[in-house]
Amino acid sequence: MSAPIDFYFDFSSPYGYLASERIDELAARHGRAVMWHAIVLDAQFQPQGGMKIPAGLMRTEYVQRDTERTAAFFGIPFKQPSPYPVHTEHAARAFQWLSDRDPEEARAFAHAVFRAYFVDGRNIAETSVLLDIADALKIDREEVSDAFSDPATKARLKAEIDLAEARGVFGSPYFIVEGEGFWGNDRLPQLERWLEKGPF
Amino acid sequence: MSAPIDFYFDFSSPYGYLASERIDELAARHGRAVMWHAIVLDAQFQPQGGMKIPAGLMRTEYVQRDTERTAAFFGIPFKQPSPYPVHTEHAARAFQWLSDRDPEEARAFAHAVFRAYFVDGRNIAETSVLLDIADALKIDREEVSDAFSDPATKARLKAEIDLAEARGVFGSPYFIVEGEGFWGNDRLPQLERWLEKGPF
Repeated sequence: MSAPIDFYFDFSSPYGYLASERIDELAARHGRAVMWHAIVLDAQFQPQGGMKIPAGLMRTEYVQRDTERTAAFFGIPFKQPSPYPVHTEHAARAFQWLSDRDPEEARAFAHAVFRAYFVDGRNIAETSVLLDIADALKIDREEVSDAFSDPATKARLKAEIDLAEARGVFGSPYFIVEGEGFWGNDRLPQLERWLEKGPF
Repeated sequence: MSAPIDFYFDFSSPYGYLASERIDELAARHGRAVMWHAIVLDAQFQPQGGMKIPAGLMRTEYVQRDTERTAAFFGIPFKQPSPYPVHTEHAARAFQWLSDRDPEEARAFAHAVFRAYFVDGRNIAETSVLLDIADALKIDREEVSDAFSDPATKARLKAEIDLAEARGVFGSPYFIVEGEGFWGNDRLPQLERWLEKGPF
């Protein structure tokens, strides 16, 4: 099997959510694995020109409409969450902690967190919501709770974000395959072309 | 024939250029006309959150690579222009002046201006370059030269930009059909779905 695809996302990113529902199937069609990486964009990317939420009223209204229309276009359930955006440090810490133990379990957790926020409107900034999500997946509630505040878990996430930044990641979703970066759900067709035919 | 598609673009926008090479054929497949509108994004959109050039070094480098890759993806000739960006007031004034006389001639001029900048690397901020482009299309050089500085032509462009802003346009390319806005070359698949099947 060729090199895996790195998939970087912020749990508060609607386009990250939409991509999370598409990337594994796309990769599988080309015999590729996907490595999922939860990052927190507002932690350090803003000074670099990162922009989680476009500024300006017109743009904000457009993005709301665009996320709903894009979800409909791809047939993915979507409901505009409120509050939006939310802090995603705890969700990302729990994800990376799980990912180091069991990537498949972490992926199931990531899907559940994204859907809780973007389909069911639950506030994934609240640790109680995240623990309930873990519970439903039969992930040990106490262990996840400990992971939220464990200095090692905090350092683990920070290192993940530093590495993402060093690799050129500045938004969500962001994909890297064979050193080539693809920013946004919109770039999945180009990523797929890359997998099919190589660099262009 | 159903309502036309409004196509807003800035001559300094690489994604606007790429869209300019695609929109007429797409519209024709669905029996739609396209109304082309040259606007100048840095004239007044920046305070509204418009962003012609993404901030931040990583993002700038990414966009350079992305424009080249996207052009290759669609099979459209493209060469990174320098200087970039350039002021496009004169090009936009000439376009709107032509458009009021002859939309087809204006469209030919727009294609020539875009290609001069994004394929041949000519500086379309210079009026001499624009006059040479007009010349090559057998558009009267003296009349275009007069239009550059005519207060009526300046007012015409300003009104076009004000109207674009009032309609929610904040970037390039931006399309409006039946009141629905689509921002970016990336949204042409959704625009096409809209033309095929109506609102979604």
